[in-house]
Amino acid sequence: MVEFMMPFTIDVNLQNGIIPNAPIVQTRHLSDLQGLFADSAAESALLAENPILYEVYEATENPVVEGHLRYSTTVIYPGKVGDEYFFTKGHYHAIGDRAELYLGLLGEGYLLLQTPAGEVHALRMLPGTAAYVPPYWGHRTINVGTENFVFFACYPADAGYDYASIAEKGFAQIMVERAGKPELVANPKWRT
Amino acid sequence: MVEFMMPFTIDVNLQNGIIPNAPIVQTRHLSDLQGLFADSAAESALLAENPILYEVYEATENPVVEGHLRYSTTVIYPGKVGDEYFFTKGHYHAIGDRAELYLGLLGEGYLLLQTPAGEVHALRMLPGTAAYVPPYWGHRTINVGTENFVFFACYPADAGYDYASIAEKGFAQIMVERAGKPELVANPKWRT
Repeated sequence: MVEFMMPFTIDVNLQNGIIPNAPIVQTRHLSDLQGLFADSAAESALLAENPILYEVYEATENPVVEGHLRYSTTVIYPGKVGDEYFFTKGHYHAIGDRAELYLGLLGEGYLLLQTPAGEVHALRMLPGTAAYVPPYWGHRTINVGTENFVFFACYPADAGYDYASIAEKGFAQIMVERAGKPELVANPKWRT
Repeated sequence: MVEFMMPFTIDVNLQNGIIPNAPIVQTRHLSDLQGLFADSAAESALLAENPILYEVYEATENPVVEGHLRYSTTVIYPGKVGDEYFFTKGHYHAIGDRAELYLGLLGEGYLLLQTPAGEVHALRMLPGTAAYVPPYWGHRTINVGTENFVFFACYPADAGYDYASIAEKGFAQIMVERAGKPELVANPKWRT
């Protein structure tokens, strides 16, 4: 017997990315990402201020069941730790073969993707950029602009999160400011 | 051995919904939906002109494989057949437990949902409305405004399409103009 879940809507403010009635809002301060930035001295210094790096507005608590979708908006604030741009923690999916889709809404950023072996790709995202995270790629987003970088995300509800691999090893490459522009460079903290 | 598909982006024009480099563009004329509107005389008369009702820009040809996602934009033009607003064909998913997500970008419309038994829900969509099609619900979108109604859609790549059920039976209720406003009324052509 099929159970019919009630259809529903939730409003996304396309002007700032906020979902006013989001059932879950995650606010990530620098302290939540401690140890992930390459410049440890700059990170320590900024921890006194402990700025908010980003917020995630989860649009739903749809069942963690194959076939369902979840979706959210993410607002990454502009800023740097040393010369490294603010980013999200980044994760792999617990169920590795689950993809994810991003749609840029505001600002300018990068989607950084990595295989477990350390192959890295960086995709530039502007408003209207639909960026695809294929199965098995770890992914992190980065604000390289001077305004908030905002995107919408949709993913299979059962994808799950593996944050530990990124927390332990980081990304093989990082996005830093060089001569006023974002540039991908080797991560001195990367451990294979 | 895991195969890593190359990450990629495609640009969506958020001002008009068009995906300029879409690998597939579907253009649906009235003749493609013949027999689906309630007012057969009005439909026949309008067939001489055979207007375009809507266009779908498929953003990807991602593999039809569990875990992958596909995504598209749909542009429904404003107009009516008799007093019934232009709509998309509508379908169930071939794999019934696959959900779908819509994000309104421009204009004003409705997402019409139906169970196979004929229970109908209509969700109003404006720019920023994230509307969820839970598993097993048939779904159709309708432009009730005077401008193009444009939305972004994301769905599991293996969801598939079942158009036949809607083509044979239609929706139990239809969206018509009454005193200048959209109203949901019983479909005289509905067959249980």
